[in-house]
Amino acid sequence: IPFFMVHLKAITAALNQNVIKLETSKVLSVLEKQVLAKIHRMIFQCDDKFYQTYVQNTQTALGTFTSGGTTANITALWVARNKIFTPKAGFSSIEEDGFLAAMAAHDLDRVVVIVSKRGHFSLRKAGGLLGIGNANVIAVDVDHHLTIDIDKLEALIQDLKNQGRTKIAAIVGIAGATETGMIDPLPTLADICERENIHFHVDASWGGPVLMSERYRDLLAGIERADSVTIDCHKQFYMPMTSGMIYFKDPNAMDAIVYHARYVNRKGSLDLGIKTLEGSREASSLILDAALKIMGTRGYGLMIEHGIETARAFAEKIKNRSQFELVSSPTLNILTYRAVPATIRADLDAATAQGQTERVRDLNRTLDEININLQRIQRETGKSFVSRTRLKRMPEDDYNVVVLRSVIMNPLTTPDILDEILDEQESILSVLYQ
Amino acid sequence: IPFFMVHLKAITAALNQNVIKLETSKVLSVLEKQVLAKIHRMIFQCDDKFYQTYVQNTQTALGTFTSGGTTANITALWVARNKIFTPKAGFSSIEEDGFLAAMAAHDLDRVVVIVSKRGHFSLRKAGGLLGIGNANVIAVDVDHHLTIDIDKLEALIQDLKNQGRTKIAAIVGIAGATETGMIDPLPTLADICERENIHFHVDASWGGPVLMSERYRDLLAGIERADSVTIDCHKQFYMPMTSGMIYFKDPNAMDAIVYHARYVNRKGSLDLGIKTLEGSREASSLILDAALKIMGTRGYGLMIEHGIETARAFAEKIKNRSQFELVSSPTLNILTYRAVPATIRADLDAATAQGQTERVRDLNRTLDEININLQRIQRETGKSFVSRTRLKRMPEDDYNVVVLRSVIMNPLTTPDILDEILDEQESILSVLYQ
Repeated sequence: IPFFMVHLKAITAALNQNVIKLETSKVLSVLEKQVLAKIHRMIFQCDDKFYQTYVQNTQTALGTFTSGGTTANITALWVARNKIFTPKAGFSSIEEDGFLAAMAAHDLDRVVVIVSKRGHFSLRKAGGLLGIGNANVIAVDVDHHLTIDIDKLEALIQDLKNQGRTKIAAIVGIAGATETGMIDPLPTLADICERENIHFHVDASWGGPVLMSERYRDLLAGIERADSVTIDCHKQFYMPMTSGMIYFKDPNAMDAIVYHARYVNRKGSLDLGIKTLEGSREASSLILDAALKIMGTRGYGLMIEHGIETARAFAEKIKNRSQFELVSSPTLNILTYRAVPATIRADLDAATAQGQTERVRDLNRTLDEININLQRIQRETGKSFVSRTRLKRMPEDDYNVVVLRSVIMNPLTTPDILDEILDEQESILSVLYQ
Repeated sequence: IPFFMVHLKAITAALNQNVIKLETSKVLSVLEKQVLAKIHRMIFQCDDKFYQTYVQNTQTALGTFTSGGTTANITALWVARNKIFTPKAGFSSIEEDGFLAAMAAHDLDRVVVIVSKRGHFSLRKAGGLLGIGNANVIAVDVDHHLTIDIDKLEALIQDLKNQGRTKIAAIVGIAGATETGMIDPLPTLADICERENIHFHVDASWGGPVLMSERYRDLLAGIERADSVTIDCHKQFYMPMTSGMIYFKDPNAMDAIVYHARYVNRKGSLDLGIKTLEGSREASSLILDAALKIMGTRGYGLMIEHGIETARAFAEKIKNRSQFELVSSPTLNILTYRAVPATIRADLDAATAQGQTERVRDLNRTLDEININLQRIQRETGKSFVSRTRLKRMPEDDYNVVVLRSVIMNPLTTPDILDEILDEQESILSVLYQ
């Protein structure tokens, strides 16, 4: 992270303001609303009149800072869950009366959330926490673009409708999958959500800051049609651990989760603690506001562009080396690849061509071993580090393979450094597997 | 907060470790488990063998750091909720199958949480979030000690049993109420929870650190019988915003909320992100560990003792001034009082003696106005600040009165300073109300 971030964090700690209420937050409550509006505008591009009305409106909220992407996603699904249970005779809200009463009042047996298999695990966690159940956070397969398979999504929606007594609380689009950096087709998801009247949440924890790049912001086209958007501060905003943000297009959406405490929050005051999952909060807005002034959105944009373009150059390098296979191309600054020694590659190609699925699987298991060892040895050597995860190589595979995952965040990363990483991996491989 | 806290926060930000997984956390994962064990021992006083087994055990958790007391309380009730829904044929867990399936599998219509009216609003919020419903977070009246009324609690439990198909997920004891600093009779609550086999949670967000005072730790007797305990770091541990902790006596309790992500957490590894509400987390344990070494538990104990004893001295001063009325005595370092000008006091005493409830209420409304103005003027003058809230003066009252709330945290606060605050208030009163 940039050196000044540490100083900003120290200043925030020295001030030690608590954003939960105006008395302990002072002008930082005003600042937070201003910063939130700035990012809200970046996402939703509402008109001037909208922001004149809502930036400092004490009755509404354009979003909030959270402790991270996880609580931001939980907040989004919390609001989405509550929204579907409108008041009825003898029923006020799910928040007040509980899940069981809500389902009875609305004649429902099942509430689900839909996301692709690349969805962050915080969404499953949110399902468990909110009483929806992990099993009802339905993961749709990805297609050959490694993004949500729209045909399967449509079929699932039809299925759920046919089942009856089932409500889809939200469809989640991913803007920068944690593992692959992939971006779901947001405009298509927006169309579907509009047609079906479903809450459209975009998890842009990773990808959100790409909006600051003139060159690449179109990759996120469609995000302006979301009902809610998660963005992390400690990822591509380069802020210290930990801070996230959740945004809602509708300035009244967060009324679904409003809480008051007598000693804290007085109605109609500028107390920001009334619509948040967290209670006391530090003033992360101060850090983001200062960073946006120090580097400017243009400065952030340059770092984002460097990351994407360097990742794309890295992908070319990987493709040009016979010992490696690119598994997912970098839409953003994340790519995955794996080592495939030449002899195994020949066997794998042959087995694949002949449809020997057992043999293909065995060879992939061997490659898993090799890549696990490769990653471990490189990490322990300490010169450089790539993380590893498991992914389906092809959507039709029924198993995951081990892949190496590279994220280009550091603006000082040059193509030469990437060559050195691959060189080191090749030399480890030559020892491991001769 | 002590000056070195800011430096510790800066160091933590500079390291910028992410405690979610070992690879990004390194030795801080080990440190976190060690600090958690230290505080766990302070609370539960298990034997050496227990800590030898569990301090660095990668399969179990004695607790976790959270973003604050709110998420700590949510985590406690999340675990308590999940614990009651044991697996059955066709049902695995509420986390997996959701609230509706859980209630059906266990033949329940209602799940409730019980706490006194002084319970923190995060408990109601937890009820809403977890699908229990705010209405099922039942607030029991306090008695003349301003702590939970045990007779009413027992009657409520009996009522709920008679209703049938109702399960009490947890009873919450308060160890240091936010508004009054009061401590519920923890041993009695422990007896009841043991008898009824109910999860016993103690919200010691405020009071927990009193355990470090040899002189006053007995005030928290009974806390060692809790199933879970919340303690805030940014309150009486004097740490910067924001950090909390949740502890479980049973090292396996947090298995009820375990989540894995392939790219993050490998089973049996020292990855601390698998049983937490939050995802990525900063290394607050580093700050607490260093602070415990810099000041020692004895140093903390001295600050705690100063706070309690100064608050008690302040209470005497208030009682000795004819213009003020002490509303809640300081068990810990929090007290509440209000201004009652002499003429109104005479009227109020007379009306009370004659049982003129309407007149008493009107006079209290007048006093509310006076105290609101008093607090506002003092705050705006800027020399000193007390917060205000609303409390029932007597448990049998059907309305709250405005009270001034004073918290003695600063070890440099002397009796003279407290006299100055009261002097200033008297002079404001003399202008306001002649």
